Amino acid sequence: MSEPVLIDATADTVGYTFGGRKPIATLTPGVPVRVRTWDCFAGKVRTVDDLPSQVCQFPYLNPVTGPFYVDGARPGDTLAVHLISLTPASPIGFSCTFPHFGALTGTHTTAMLHPALPERVWQYTIDHGASIVRYTARGSAYTVDLPLAPMLGTVGVAPAAAEVRASIVCGAHGGNLDTPLLQAGTTLYLPVSEPGALLALGDGHARQGDGELCGVAVEVPMDVTLAVEIISDVTTAWPRLETDTRIMSIGVARPLEDAYRAAHADLVHLVTDLTGLDELDAYQLLSQAGRAHVGNVVDTDYTIAAAIDKHLLDGAQPYRGAHRRLRALTLERP
Amino acid sequence: MSEPVLIDATADTVGYTFGGRKPIATLTPGVPVRVRTWDCFAGKVRTVDDLPSQVCQFPYLNPVTGPFYVDGARPGDTLAVHLISLTPASPIGFSCTFPHFGALTGTHTTAMLHPALPERVWQYTIDHGASIVRYTARGSAYTVDLPLAPMLGTVGVAPAAAEVRASIVCGAHGGNLDTPLLQAGTTLYLPVSEPGALLALGDGHARQGDGELCGVAVEVPMDVTLAVEIISDVTTAWPRLETDTRIMSIGVARPLEDAYRAAHADLVHLVTDLTGLDELDAYQLLSQAGRAHVGNVVDTDYTIAAAIDKHLLDGAQPYRGAHRRLRALTLERP
Amino acid sequence: MSEPVLIDATADTVGYTFGGRKPIATLTPGVPVRVRTWDCFAGKVRTVDDLPSQVCQFPYLNPVTGPFYVDGARPGDTLAVHLISLTPASPIGFSCTFPHFGALTGTHTTAMLHPALPERVWQYTIDHGASIVRYTARGSAYTVDLPLAPMLGTVGVAPAAAEVRASIVCGAHGGNLDTPLLQAGTTLYLPVSEPGALLALGDGHARQGDGELCGVAVEVPMDVTLAVEIISDVTTAWPRLETDTRIMSIGVARPLEDAYRAAHADLVHLVTDLTGLDELDAYQLLSQAGRAHVGNVVDTDYTIAAAIDKHLLDGAQPYRGAHRRLRALTLERP
Amino acid sequence: MSEPVLIDATADTVGYTFGGRKPIATLTPGVPVRVRTWDCFAGKVRTVDDLPSQVCQFPYLNPVTGPFYVDGARPGDTLAVHLISLTPASPIGFSCTFPHFGALTGTHTTAMLHPALPERVWQYTIDHGASIVRYTARGSAYTVDLPLAPMLGTVGVAPAAAEVRASIVCGAHGGNLDTPLLQAGTTLYLPVSEPGALLALGDGHARQGDGELCGVAVEVPMDVTLAVEIISDVTTAWPRLETDTRIMSIGVARPLEDAYRAAHADLVHLVTDLTGLDELDAYQLLSQAGRAHVGNVVDTDYTIAAAIDKHLLDGAQPYRGAHRRLRALTLERP
Repeated sequence: MSEPVLIDATADTVGYTFGGRKPIATLTPGVPVRVRTWDCFAGKVRTVDDLPSQVCQFPYLNPVTGPFYVDGARPGDTLAVHLISLTPASPIGFSCTFPHFGALTGTHTTAMLHPALPERVWQYTIDHGASIVRYTARGSAYTVDLPLAPMLGTVGVAPAAAEVRASIVCGAHGGNLDTPLLQAGTTLYLPVSEPGALLALGDGHARQGDGELCGVAVEVPMDVTLAVEIISDVTTAWPRLETDTRIMSIGVARPLEDAYRAAHADLVHLVTDLTGLDELDAYQLLSQAGRAHVGNVVDTDYTIAAAIDKHLLDGAQPYRGAHRRLRALTLERP
Repeated sequence: MSEPVLIDATADTVGYTFGGRKPIATLTPGVPVRVRTWDCFAGKVRTVDDLPSQVCQFPYLNPVTGPFYVDGARPGDTLAVHLISLTPASPIGFSCTFPHFGALTGTHTTAMLHPALPERVWQYTIDHGASIVRYTARGSAYTVDLPLAPMLGTVGVAPAAAEVRASIVCGAHGGNLDTPLLQAGTTLYLPVSEPGALLALGDGHARQGDGELCGVAVEVPMDVTLAVEIISDVTTAWPRLETDTRIMSIGVARPLEDAYRAAHADLVHLVTDLTGLDELDAYQLLSQAGRAHVGNVVDTDYTIAAAIDKHLLDGAQPYRGAHRRLRALTLERP
Repeated sequence: MSEPVLIDATADTVGYTFGGRKPIATLTPGVPVRVRTWDCFAGKVRTVDDLPSQVCQFPYLNPVTGPFYVDGARPGDTLAVHLISLTPASPIGFSCTFPHFGALTGTHTTAMLHPALPERVWQYTIDHGASIVRYTARGSAYTVDLPLAPMLGTVGVAPAAAEVRASIVCGAHGGNLDTPLLQAGTTLYLPVSEPGALLALGDGHARQGDGELCGVAVEVPMDVTLAVEIISDVTTAWPRLETDTRIMSIGVARPLEDAYRAAHADLVHLVTDLTGLDELDAYQLLSQAGRAHVGNVVDTDYTIAAAIDKHLLDGAQPYRGAHRRLRALTLERP
Repeated sequence: MSEPVLIDATADTVGYTFGGRKPIATLTPGVPVRVRTWDCFAGKVRTVDDLPSQVCQFPYLNPVTGPFYVDGARPGDTLAVHLISLTPASPIGFSCTFPHFGALTGTHTTAMLHPALPERVWQYTIDHGASIVRYTARGSAYTVDLPLAPMLGTVGVAPAAAEVRASIVCGAHGGNLDTPLLQAGTTLYLPVSEPGALLALGDGHARQGDGELCGVAVEVPMDVTLAVEIISDVTTAWPRLETDTRIMSIGVARPLEDAYRAAHADLVHLVTDLTGLDELDAYQLLSQAGRAHVGNVVDTDYTIAAAIDKHLLDGAQPYRGAHRRLRALTLERP
């Protein structure tokens, strides 16, 4: 296999919406491609003195590279997006508090009369060899190393109903899901609502805690290698994930219990489809064997992923085995 | 004053989004216009045997007439939309239960394993002379007359951040607010995010209970007479309403307490601006004198309006007196 | 009719829980009684310089007078509590902000990293003759008169399942419902869970805005005249209210939409019982004719009352006409 | 070390509340004790034909053994409860759907008009040697083995403010937390509100999925070996957990995001105390390194645990090293 083509992130190839923009390139199912993404600050935070509320301008936050026209994708299909590799494209990453954004502060909707928490930027150093991300406190001398765990915060397609959504929004179309589960080796399933699906991605994180507590992960530009596949005439209600060992449904909603409910109801239906269990039996199995992963509790809607091990599902192959085929692209690489 | 021009609702003048569509006409500030709107079923429910889930097709629900280009409106301005009169354009209206939609049923996000509640349609007869709407039960012989109280469920402009939202969605741009407060004599203030604002409206209700419990009001086509005004260089964070006696802020969010919070925090700020009270004093005044009106607890986001009597605010004239000027258009009509 | 006996509020007759305490007196159904209640500060706030967090000590907040043993009340019955009159027992009332309490501040559960909002006390003067409550700002010279509208914030009985709840808590047993609907002329229905019901009451408000925004109303000691009746062998799931014109169900829950749901589902059932309408027809009628009243969005659980006019219900007499009989006690007074 | 005394579960030693009951025995800090607990059905479900809604009677659900008077515990202290071992005391366990209980069904508060989902019981066989729990479907032939992972659903003390809470309730006092984290090797910290703390425990689960989706885990009687310690004059706002590697705070609230917020705000404070980091730095560290574990999304309040690895906290020893001392009791056992 030859090295995949690289699509760089430039002013011409990034944007700030899902839908509403013309494709920048075409993807061929089964053929890996490399995509560079900018960090959520569009690269404007370069030191701990660059306060995002000053150097960034709404709505030019959370740029996504794309959209990509996926050859053959039609409304009513499902798009499988497999992340072959994720490599932070910088030796440093940034995080911050941002005024009235995050889980432990009043926000636009959880409106309070408090003034904003102080805005502060943290710089992380990334050591690829040691696979660590170094946290350095700002208010005192304190450093600690955390595991490097690259993920993409934002992967999505054009939404249904002719909608256009800001790239900072999450929904059934994917978007800013902000779940640490979206790592290399994972396949994301999204519903196709427009011809070509119009895939876009960005918001790389060197790592992120569950819930993205303060609203900002360790933000980095990212080198992404991915491949896609189309599952024709199969619809997908909520974003789903698959790894070698697990399948997952992502609920996107507020309040957070609705994200939990949507994810689990969707997974009940998937388990039922895959195993022939009736709904109550699938509900029961998930009650004892299901895992719930909090994605974000900070964005426009919250995300929870419901997960179950595939070995409990009798050799299940959702989406006609798409994950296995896409995963083989990695394994066969030199 | 001559009779305002009529813009009819036709396949060419209605649409299903806010943003993303070309204007169908231009409005001149201060000049009344008549607009016909379709009901939320686009007129496809004609008898109690027309089940909406069968005769309507997603996303072709909740048509809005427009968009209208408001001459002179620029991003950063506020658009004042004054409803001069609302007259149901049909002697009958319809309501229904709709599968997995409403406050007392599992929905897409408040996901449950229950099968949908039965779908049922109710036909209401409207007596303009008596100003009543007659409810007729379906499962037994029972009729009762309710006051006619025409309102518009959906009035909005193009959203910020280049977004396009389905007409069934509500947000800072207005849209499907579904509040019974949006009656004749009321001025709605919305933030302008695109040149010309791109106003659109629809979803007339002959009346509606608080919260729009089952998700569907007494749906009717509507004859709307309205006039607009631009408040230049004044931004508006959340939709606001003004009548001769009250000012109101509408919070749009989930969970419902966040709608309550957003509405009241916005009204605290407005009261502070209008009276010179500091924030705590305004907070206190609203705590004792504020009213909270539940709009809908069924749509993509919920709405609550926070209200206060203007006579408590020392002769306040928000938005440079726009309401009074627009209101005068009605009073001077023959 | 002779003047009712007065039960004063003293250290011996007030307490801070529902359940868990011995009765202080016995009530005879149908015989009016006068009860004095302390304000929520137990009288310790006497000037605007008495900060509640300093002069009051948790959990000695929100004292209730009682409990009263209601002669003949048995578990499984419903207790009807009719408020004949409510008269503030002081020419002044107090409100305040309280650290980490209220709808527009981080709280114990809606936990934020913000420091508390400033604590401030407001003193209101009450003019019984003019029926007004005068608001006086603290940060600037600003006064305004609000209508006097006395209500009780807290009326409840011993909870089910042998629980004991703090008087600041609301639930199916009533308690700190904090709804402006609990005024003179209103009957409150509560489920009897312990022999004698063990009724207690307090937390008088000279008036309150919808939602009790900052968490504290215009707090006053109150002279309450009330009478009770027992509806034997009739259970009540949620607190209900009845006036001469309306019936209401109160949902007590978080998030606020659950309070809305619980209230309306309960009222659907009540309408069904009273009219013979099937559930869907009752759901539809409430969707168009129901009113939702926000009680509090600040206490341990939130409250919403769902209401409908009795004249729409074909002469309905819930609870065997208890309200009408209790109401007659007022009308026959000299 | 001699074998600990066994306190059996009998009609005399179990109860259905936290608070409001006399102690059945006294615990000496540092001295292990064995406690038998009944399953949540009080042993009344013995076959898949025993429907809980028929064989059990509210409020006699979720029995807890105790309360135990902890020698020396005073209000204002913290009680450390260390679980030395948990062994299911039966070769079978039961789960079920229960009418209007669970995350994917309408409930008392998330009230819907749907009839209850069908009630169904599942019997699990437990193989201690293989350390598995066998799931057997009811509607089709399907079995699968899940890892045995014993935990206690309910551990708590007498609540603050003289409250008495049903054993099915969770709160700051612990109670029905239903988190899979409460396993052997874990120390639970709870606030002491009454002399002797009045510890009680029950609701053993052979295993449970995240969120306890249907509301019922694999319910078993349990043999519990535990030891307690008192941390004098140290208060605890929310239940906390400690293992050899992690510390955790449990938020108990609705909506679920409030449980997330309360847990994380509490852990921010703990991290600040343990490391000297300022609040913003601790907030940032948790944003990247924190884990969120969903406990239950079905009980009266929901639970989420926020967790962080102690090795990131510079050798932190919360609660004066109580966990290490209690843990040593296990390690020194023969």
